[in-house]
Amino acid sequence: MTQKTSLKNRITKLFNIEYPIIQGGMVWCAGWELASAVSNAGGLGIIGSGSMYPNVLKDQIIKCQAATSRPFAVNVPLLYPSVEEHMQTIVDLGVPIVFTSAGSPKIWTSHLKAKGITVVHVVSSSKFAIKSEEAGVDAVVAEGFEAGGHNGREETTSMCLIPAVSSISSIPVIAAGGLHDGRSVLAAMILGADGVQMGSRFVACEESSAHIAFKEAVIGAGEGATSLTLKEITPVRMLHNPLYKKLAEAQQRGASIDELTEILGRGRAKRGMFEGDLIEGELEIGQIASLLEGIPSASEIIDEIVSEYRDLGAKKLGEKFNF
Amino acid sequence: MTQKTSLKNRITKLFNIEYPIIQGGMVWCAGWELASAVSNAGGLGIIGSGSMYPNVLKDQIIKCQAATSRPFAVNVPLLYPSVEEHMQTIVDLGVPIVFTSAGSPKIWTSHLKAKGITVVHVVSSSKFAIKSEEAGVDAVVAEGFEAGGHNGREETTSMCLIPAVSSISSIPVIAAGGLHDGRSVLAAMILGADGVQMGSRFVACEESSAHIAFKEAVIGAGEGATSLTLKEITPVRMLHNPLYKKLAEAQQRGASIDELTEILGRGRAKRGMFEGDLIEGELEIGQIASLLEGIPSASEIIDEIVSEYRDLGAKKLGEKFNF
Repeated sequence: MTQKTSLKNRITKLFNIEYPIIQGGMVWCAGWELASAVSNAGGLGIIGSGSMYPNVLKDQIIKCQAATSRPFAVNVPLLYPSVEEHMQTIVDLGVPIVFTSAGSPKIWTSHLKAKGITVVHVVSSSKFAIKSEEAGVDAVVAEGFEAGGHNGREETTSMCLIPAVSSISSIPVIAAGGLHDGRSVLAAMILGADGVQMGSRFVACEESSAHIAFKEAVIGAGEGATSLTLKEITPVRMLHNPLYKKLAEAQQRGASIDELTEILGRGRAKRGMFEGDLIEGELEIGQIASLLEGIPSASEIIDEIVSEYRDLGAKKLGEKFNF
Repeated sequence: MTQKTSLKNRITKLFNIEYPIIQGGMVWCAGWELASAVSNAGGLGIIGSGSMYPNVLKDQIIKCQAATSRPFAVNVPLLYPSVEEHMQTIVDLGVPIVFTSAGSPKIWTSHLKAKGITVVHVVSSSKFAIKSEEAGVDAVVAEGFEAGGHNGREETTSMCLIPAVSSISSIPVIAAGGLHDGRSVLAAMILGADGVQMGSRFVACEESSAHIAFKEAVIGAGEGATSLTLKEITPVRMLHNPLYKKLAEAQQRGASIDELTEILGRGRAKRGMFEGDLIEGELEIGQIASLLEGIPSASEIIDEIVSEYRDLGAKKLGEKFNF
């Protein structure tokens, strides 16, 4: 692919990609198969390192590099215990782009930038978007309340967050939360975003490493089937399954943080999303699950989004819309 | 104003108005001054009857009719004790359009329709949108989680709700929640809506009957300054003031519904929004408050929205966008 330098979209230029469509770095779902498939389809694929031991991440990056010649990124949750080893691996193997989340962008941004790496930080408020820009990141992801997985406490939705973050940022803004098709991509860009990130849509994708039972639960989810819960510990949006109900009941009767932590236990996300235990596992997914149909391939997803986006007449709206 | 019959927008046609921009029927804020000003500016003004005794509503409708020759509506919360008297007044005085909310659309729709009245019902889920269409309403308002005041328990945001309701409705859909400017109007319409309803934007409006102290609190509100609370009783989004904090603390320690109801007491909404008691009053407002600036007139609000909407190039996207 040759870069289309005539285009003015700041995200396609920043990452040297064809479409400003970025796949989320979801734990247990976003391995090299998914990341390389998204990048090969013209978007930006991301390896989600939050569920990987250092040697696993190394292996995943090497496999991804073998599977695509296009840019891809690694997502690193900054509170992850192996963050130093992960960052070393990323630098050593020449990964061009890092998405950081769940922590302060101050700690790692300048280090990564000094190595020539493009850095993007995920935020759920304007306040942290400002801090991220001050820390020197190249772009921010503004993630709304409707998104799956870990999320902010202020509960600001994409409809309110995208214009808020866009209006105070001079760097490009990537919208996330509630997006899944060409209409929502165009809506997010009209609200002020330069690009989009989708997690849930790529969970239920052929190349996602999520367990098939979880993928089927995602596309089978109805409206209102998720909640942002565990606000006492770390807010996370999950599907209403027996584990969720157990936690909700405990919260209802005023359980302590210790008790909630004990009910949650360890390894629940792997158990639910990777091993397919829909009863006892933690199933992280966004509200948009209710609108997802089928388990297409990454290239089918991207082609469908781009085709719908173009059919809406998006290109008529200006240079940044022209992809 | 002559109806522009060449236009294809289903909401402007349904209500015989110039722009598919509808003002919310907010309690204590939406009297005849606001409703007539919005209708005179080419939108649809609504009198919020939920805070009015029967004789007050009668007086408000008569004054609104004297102030505008254009269509306006009355919003009636169906759980309101004076609903029968309100409906009789509406029929007697020839109000052309009724927005119903907070209750089943089965009870009143056919009665109102038989009198030649256009009926719209407010919903927060696809399930109730289907029920509303089955009950015979002419349009639905799909109200997202970010909206102010009373709201649904499922917490579905506008970004997810608008496409969901639009895709299962054959009647026109009006988006509400998180909307305040030309960009958000266009985004909502791209997501599938035929028109928009804005509450918060018209609270902080010259002709709103909200107390000036409340209007100033609304435009001074920061991001994250509201929460959807009282889910145990009736979910309502309110500004974080001392009353909110008192309720939140009680919830935190597992207070019973009786205790919460007692803390809330009676007349709090009037006290906060109409009398300007920012400490002890209930201040209902949407997340979008953080993006509002100034207290313009209704016609300034509508002119600014339409102008921004047109500058974005909206008309290029198709017939329904052409206003």
